[in-house]
Amino acid sequence: MDQMRGANSLNVKALVFDVFGTVVDWRGSIIREGEQWGRALSVQVDWAHFADRWRAGYDPSMQKVRSGALPWMKLDDLHELILDELLEEFQIRGLSPEEKHHWNRVWHRLGPWPDAVEGLTRLKEKFVIATLSNGNLSLLVNMAKRGRLPWDAVLSAELFHHYKPDPEVYLGAADLLGCKPAEVVMVAAHGGDLKAARKCGLRTAFVARPLEFGPNEKPDIASGESFDLMTSDFVELASLL
Amino acid sequence: MDQMRGANSLNVKALVFDVFGTVVDWRGSIIREGEQWGRALSVQVDWAHFADRWRAGYDPSMQKVRSGALPWMKLDDLHELILDELLEEFQIRGLSPEEKHHWNRVWHRLGPWPDAVEGLTRLKEKFVIATLSNGNLSLLVNMAKRGRLPWDAVLSAELFHHYKPDPEVYLGAADLLGCKPAEVVMVAAHGGDLKAARKCGLRTAFVARPLEFGPNEKPDIASGESFDLMTSDFVELASLL
Repeated sequence: MDQMRGANSLNVKALVFDVFGTVVDWRGSIIREGEQWGRALSVQVDWAHFADRWRAGYDPSMQKVRSGALPWMKLDDLHELILDELLEEFQIRGLSPEEKHHWNRVWHRLGPWPDAVEGLTRLKEKFVIATLSNGNLSLLVNMAKRGRLPWDAVLSAELFHHYKPDPEVYLGAADLLGCKPAEVVMVAAHGGDLKAARKCGLRTAFVARPLEFGPNEKPDIASGESFDLMTSDFVELASLL
Repeated sequence: MDQMRGANSLNVKALVFDVFGTVVDWRGSIIREGEQWGRALSVQVDWAHFADRWRAGYDPSMQKVRSGALPWMKLDDLHELILDELLEEFQIRGLSPEEKHHWNRVWHRLGPWPDAVEGLTRLKEKFVIATLSNGNLSLLVNMAKRGRLPWDAVLSAELFHHYKPDPEVYLGAADLLGCKPAEVVMVAAHGGDLKAARKCGLRTAFVARPLEFGPNEKPDIASGESFDLMTSDFVELASLL
């Protein structure tokens, strides 16, 4: 992989991280909690399919905000709009509002990939590390508390009322961190996020998460793009920087 | 002191903290670093007076932003406007732009009061803890890294383009944290900050910092107000909650 530009020539001050899929295993976490929840409710559900369907509603719902078809909404609220449809589709009925609210917030309880905490802890010694996620701020804060993710700052699309890949998010994050865009590395497992960050002048680090979409689906392999750093996990990223 | 409403009846989810004077000793920190800096520059300056004059420029400069006389500016930039006048007043001449920039950022390097890290670490076990300061986000992030302040989130007036005590700051913080205002406690050593937070529906905790303005000046003693919690430091606050 193309690692010719090391930390010295990159002049990095801060790293900002995509979260869903890059830091946490949304799919595995939803399946695990769904299976427990299904037993408690005595419902039979294919939770992997449920998780995939929930995630599949994510891009279209943000697109509705981007186009103005929906007003600005926190991701929690978009997740709940999608959930309402899924509960119908999977014929899960009779939930109290509190039960539905709790299940919607499974996204606050996603668990980190095994290398995440160690890698972030090492990166934090040298750099400012922050989230840069479409998840709303309270979701990211709750997730970090639970998963012991040692962020220096929790930055969210919510602060800019724009969802990634809108440029306002990347440029807004660099400004809040007091950095030029080129002093910030966007870290993500998704080529589209990195390409949008690169267009704004940020540095880019791709982290491969081959199991993000499950064992049967093709992971994002950066679509043949080459980013500033190409890594297999956060510990390797820390070693490269 | 009036402690009849304990943690149970308060139903607290998050605590947000004023920073300058409440978490960190701005005056002592500026004096200490100023004395070192003055020796290096071979200038004779009364650094306590310098610190007090810098702080004295703070409220009027934010008022200019509030009134529209100045556009929105980060506190770093307001600090630099005041510093330009102080360098004249104290006849400190011939600084390079880099030296001035570094000295302006002494506000990023303020040290915590002795109880702050221990108290915050304990409070973090039970609550979301966040800054809610007029300091800009990068200032607060750098300060936290240096002082090992274990914030769950770094919230700043900068996120709202309003300086405290404007209500947008308190209400905006509660919204970002996913809380009702009454589920959030504003913690501050200044009665004015707490009164403004209370008007927005937040709970309030006063922390006495008798040395904030130095040994010869009257500290803020909450001006005869009674807030939800009246404490002498963060460790006591943690015990009460």
